[in-house]
Amino acid sequence: MGPTTMSEDDNPTAAMLAIGDELLSGRTKDKNIGHLAEAMTLIGIGLKEVRIVADDADAIIEAVNTLRSRYTYVFTSGGIGGTHDDITADSVSTAFGLPCIYNDEAMTRLTTHYQRRGIEFNASRQRMARMPEGATLIDNPVSTAPGFVIGNIYVMAGVPSIFQAMLDNVIPTLKGGVPLISETVECPFGEGDIAARLGEIQKAHPETSIGSYPRFSAEGFRTQLVVRAREKADVEAAAADIRSMLEAMTAH
Amino acid sequence: MGPTTMSEDDNPTAAMLAIGDELLSGRTKDKNIGHLAEAMTLIGIGLKEVRIVADDADAIIEAVNTLRSRYTYVFTSGGIGGTHDDITADSVSTAFGLPCIYNDEAMTRLTTHYQRRGIEFNASRQRMARMPEGATLIDNPVSTAPGFVIGNIYVMAGVPSIFQAMLDNVIPTLKGGVPLISETVECPFGEGDIAARLGEIQKAHPETSIGSYPRFSAEGFRTQLVVRAREKADVEAAAADIRSMLEAMTAH
Repeated sequence: MGPTTMSEDDNPTAAMLAIGDELLSGRTKDKNIGHLAEAMTLIGIGLKEVRIVADDADAIIEAVNTLRSRYTYVFTSGGIGGTHDDITADSVSTAFGLPCIYNDEAMTRLTTHYQRRGIEFNASRQRMARMPEGATLIDNPVSTAPGFVIGNIYVMAGVPSIFQAMLDNVIPTLKGGVPLISETVECPFGEGDIAARLGEIQKAHPETSIGSYPRFSAEGFRTQLVVRAREKADVEAAAADIRSMLEAMTAH
Repeated sequence: MGPTTMSEDDNPTAAMLAIGDELLSGRTKDKNIGHLAEAMTLIGIGLKEVRIVADDADAIIEAVNTLRSRYTYVFTSGGIGGTHDDITADSVSTAFGLPCIYNDEAMTRLTTHYQRRGIEFNASRQRMARMPEGATLIDNPVSTAPGFVIGNIYVMAGVPSIFQAMLDNVIPTLKGGVPLISETVECPFGEGDIAARLGEIQKAHPETSIGSYPRFSAEGFRTQLVVRAREKADVEAAAADIRSMLEAMTAH
């Protein structure tokens, strides 16, 4: 959708920063971006940008500072474990100009967690309690080591089950917007057959955003047309026009 | 891995820019980033950064201009079809300060393609021949409509089968680097048990980069340790030290 379609200026916005060499080497296929995208759509927060950067302090700091100045919320994944390549907490602290300290509450939770299991709470495990001074914790029901919030940055784990559990704890604390309503119309034609008429329908319904998603299969191109808007009536009106267009084309 | 590990300064670098509202709404889960990441790793080009932006001209222009000034190659996906929401060609043209024109060779290919199939080569389909003046084509063996190269930007389709086919055509034209060799060591311990010793092994092998990737399962945490370097001997030496560490831990 281009600049002519509906404004989302009054809705909160978000960006995601996925951190990790393994995502850029192809070793790990990210699963958190799509999950966050769906979750934001459901609560009416517009995910506007995603970046993936390496476990590199300069890259993380630059991305954090750019994104936090632009969007209502920034969510990060990855790099908060206890090994030498986990530098997210340090980098986010530097981005905010804050010392990276051992958070008291996180130390308490981790001490209890490892005591119960009879596992040594060694220096590496203690590293997982480090975060910028003044950060608040994001609960981790899976493996205890918490994420944290500082400013408008939500720092979460990269392991998908933990990322998702942390996000579940974060979402009720966010100021959501008006969720977009969407309707998908299956189109048996390729984009080239519908583009001109679809463009006219988009113009006639500026309060909606109409996306066109081709798929290539053995029978050639098929297209899914997705109408999105704040108001159900707007979605239905544009979708009705699309269906009329398709019926007229099929009748030919 | 942090700044203390091996330098990749002499290797070519790359970034990816995935374009499309559907990726940010969660409707479509990107499959091209992981594919590009694997391909770059194989040919020794360091993928340093990925961005996902909406079908928004300003966002595309800014990302294109930032990334093309930083990296050897920039690969884009999405937004090159014939519908109103396909604005990649226009945005890339604007980023380069070039007019967006109907490329002669692309028009010829598309004319032939649609003539053969008895399909009208209408204005919407002709839009797929638009690209910055001076661009060269990237062949599309799947559905003819070409991608294009302008400067160090490679503009490709978002449909995964077409993206992959286009990338196959692009790769032989790139200046590759020295591919990283990697070895994965399965570790039956969580990161907290190995972090200190692993950090020492990383320090003892600065020519390698050692990544630590925890997985959470019913039995608790397991970790995959991945050693990467240019030279096989370096990988093997670090992997041997890791295996010795694990054997000593298991013997306890």
